[in-house]
Amino acid sequence: MIKIAVLGYGTVGSGVVEVIARNQARVLESAGEEIAVKYILDLREFPGDPFEDKVIHDFSTILNDAEISIVCETMGGVGPAYQFTKQALEAGKSVCTSNKELVAKHGTELLSIAADRHCNYLFEASVGGGIPIIRPISTSLTAEQIESVTGILNGTTNYILTKMETEHADYHDVLKLAQELGYAERNPEADVEGHDAGRKIAILTALVTGREVDAEKIYTEGITGICSADFVFASEKGMKIKLLARSRIREDGKISVLVAPFMIPLEHPLSSVDDVFNGVVLTGNMLGDTLFYGRGAGKLPTASAVAADVIDCARNQGRTIMRGWGPEKAEMADAAEEERRFFVRCAASAASQVAEAFWGKDNTEASEGIFLAEEFGFFTPVIREKDFREKCRELGECVSGAIRLL
Amino acid sequence: MIKIAVLGYGTVGSGVVEVIARNQARVLESAGEEIAVKYILDLREFPGDPFEDKVIHDFSTILNDAEISIVCETMGGVGPAYQFTKQALEAGKSVCTSNKELVAKHGTELLSIAADRHCNYLFEASVGGGIPIIRPISTSLTAEQIESVTGILNGTTNYILTKMETEHADYHDVLKLAQELGYAERNPEADVEGHDAGRKIAILTALVTGREVDAEKIYTEGITGICSADFVFASEKGMKIKLLARSRIREDGKISVLVAPFMIPLEHPLSSVDDVFNGVVLTGNMLGDTLFYGRGAGKLPTASAVAADVIDCARNQGRTIMRGWGPEKAEMADAAEEERRFFVRCAASAASQVAEAFWGKDNTEASEGIFLAEEFGFFTPVIREKDFREKCRELGECVSGAIRLL
Repeated sequence: MIKIAVLGYGTVGSGVVEVIARNQARVLESAGEEIAVKYILDLREFPGDPFEDKVIHDFSTILNDAEISIVCETMGGVGPAYQFTKQALEAGKSVCTSNKELVAKHGTELLSIAADRHCNYLFEASVGGGIPIIRPISTSLTAEQIESVTGILNGTTNYILTKMETEHADYHDVLKLAQELGYAERNPEADVEGHDAGRKIAILTALVTGREVDAEKIYTEGITGICSADFVFASEKGMKIKLLARSRIREDGKISVLVAPFMIPLEHPLSSVDDVFNGVVLTGNMLGDTLFYGRGAGKLPTASAVAADVIDCARNQGRTIMRGWGPEKAEMADAAEEERRFFVRCAASAASQVAEAFWGKDNTEASEGIFLAEEFGFFTPVIREKDFREKCRELGECVSGAIRLL
Repeated sequence: MIKIAVLGYGTVGSGVVEVIARNQARVLESAGEEIAVKYILDLREFPGDPFEDKVIHDFSTILNDAEISIVCETMGGVGPAYQFTKQALEAGKSVCTSNKELVAKHGTELLSIAADRHCNYLFEASVGGGIPIIRPISTSLTAEQIESVTGILNGTTNYILTKMETEHADYHDVLKLAQELGYAERNPEADVEGHDAGRKIAILTALVTGREVDAEKIYTEGITGICSADFVFASEKGMKIKLLARSRIREDGKISVLVAPFMIPLEHPLSSVDDVFNGVVLTGNMLGDTLFYGRGAGKLPTASAVAADVIDCARNQGRTIMRGWGPEKAEMADAAEEERRFFVRCAASAASQVAEAFWGKDNTEASEGIFLAEEFGFFTPVIREKDFREKCRELGECVSGAIRLL
């Protein structure tokens, strides 16, 4: 029998305990051994909870118990979670986590400790919740040169964008609804400003390149600037608006990463990823596009991925199976030098001025522009990000909105 | 350095050699060791081929060469492929294959030999081509009770159905085009009658249940009975027609498996899997639906999956990582007892007679029936397969077509 400890008895932690209890037979069959939760670490008491007798408050009990070979870190944040994870790995105990913040910030060091101690630091649940994505990159697409990773990695913003699109609703109204439903935090910044998606694409990019990626250096633009008029234009053009986290591995080895709203055509596999669902497209040089889609958040889906990591640790005791990435830093391309097309929205009265700024006087039909209500919307030619920003600055308040094209 | 042999230098075999050569650096990094093709077994010579000096004609050279630890079986069929695979595994050499026919027919025995000899029999490429699906079931969804597997597993038929839908084309014309493009075999029976999809769902179901599934016992209905009128009705109803391979693990432990055309709503994740693409939805009791989508066939995508298996064997020498399934047979539910709804098409003149046969005299509005051209199409209530067939027999030629609803 394998005894494990769960750190943090919140949503995901209690989910892990529930999955292991409810799917006991399946877990036993998969792991080849029974897996039992011995300790649950939390500051709180849980009177009446079926597992209340497992609850303890002192991490050293877990650290010093030689029976505990696997620890689930479902606390979140980087404070004590970092200390506990580091100490557990140094003691040769494998750690499975859903904590993307910690993986993005200290993953390099924690992976290296795990390798030194012949144990594992696994984090399938940190990206895409219950969708298998970390393990497919590490063990399935191993013969592929992965050229790009494009994902809808944040369920909260995807829910908001879907509602804005289908119900022609205003951003602030939908955010309020999402908060009421528990899909968005009271302080929604990490989600709506794209920081959560930024951490996740940092983790995926590090896995794909084998190098450390600093999430804080990723260019990140959230969804707060998207308004319902954008969806009307997108729909006219047969497109959807999605917050994408995207990294491209360039031929010179540099990586180009960003998080931003994009217009994507209906034919793109990510265009049908709606509501709180997540989706990731990996593009390989042999395989082309492969999509992974499912529940990117939620108690039981996320917990199921943590439990699968526990099973993998149980099957591979004394053996490091996750290489992850090394200490070398991925070289990031200058985001301002990237070239792409943009959708631009402006007042109808400024249509010819704004279109000409991008297309020149005689070419504005090429912009596929359309008038809707009091506005004009069109696509720019391929242009460098920095040139685009410069032109927008020159045009000033004439430009009412801009969204990248995929 | 790890030396491997490739059996069969056809489409997939030459693809494996190409992937390993072109993605050499990535393969080395993933495997931790260089992987080199030492032998290519084929009956033919390949003068001028860059690998012509590796081509041999006698399998015993491979079998008796202690340097060869991994063999790729890309011959297809069950004849010599079975003998060679068995002998290689008995000699402790791991075998990686794209041969779904052999896996479906002799997988149980071959997996057992691999386990006895502490080597591996891996077959990621046998289902869904380059899409990771075998490994996610075996190593990622290990804490899930998988309740159903639903897939578009045959690219040829999916291409034909997509063309029939988008171009309002006739089945025979599209089949001819698919044959000209090389998407369909000259003898298309294995694809269009659903046998290929049947083997693949047998493999996935065996993995999910841990028990042997006899592909030949699976109820299989192909696409030859679908005509363009069906698509007109489907489109009116906001539905698509797809050849699905589906297994459901019932609460009594029996499995209910079939291959048949289904009408599926546009909101279903498989509805946007078009052309030669494949998609598989796994439904777990914690995770809900997860979709895997990508290129289900083609030289390089399939070869990439075989090469990933080779890398997994290289990483895990002397260690069986694929449990697969045991010799116990999965108990199959009687397909005739399954209950579901159907779409029925009949001559407009027979509308009330046919609708009443399923709905009774006063309830026919519940059928959501519509008249189009000279025909009437409607949905039946939930009905047992055998009762449905009985009613259709009674109605005789009045019923011009019937398709299951998902």
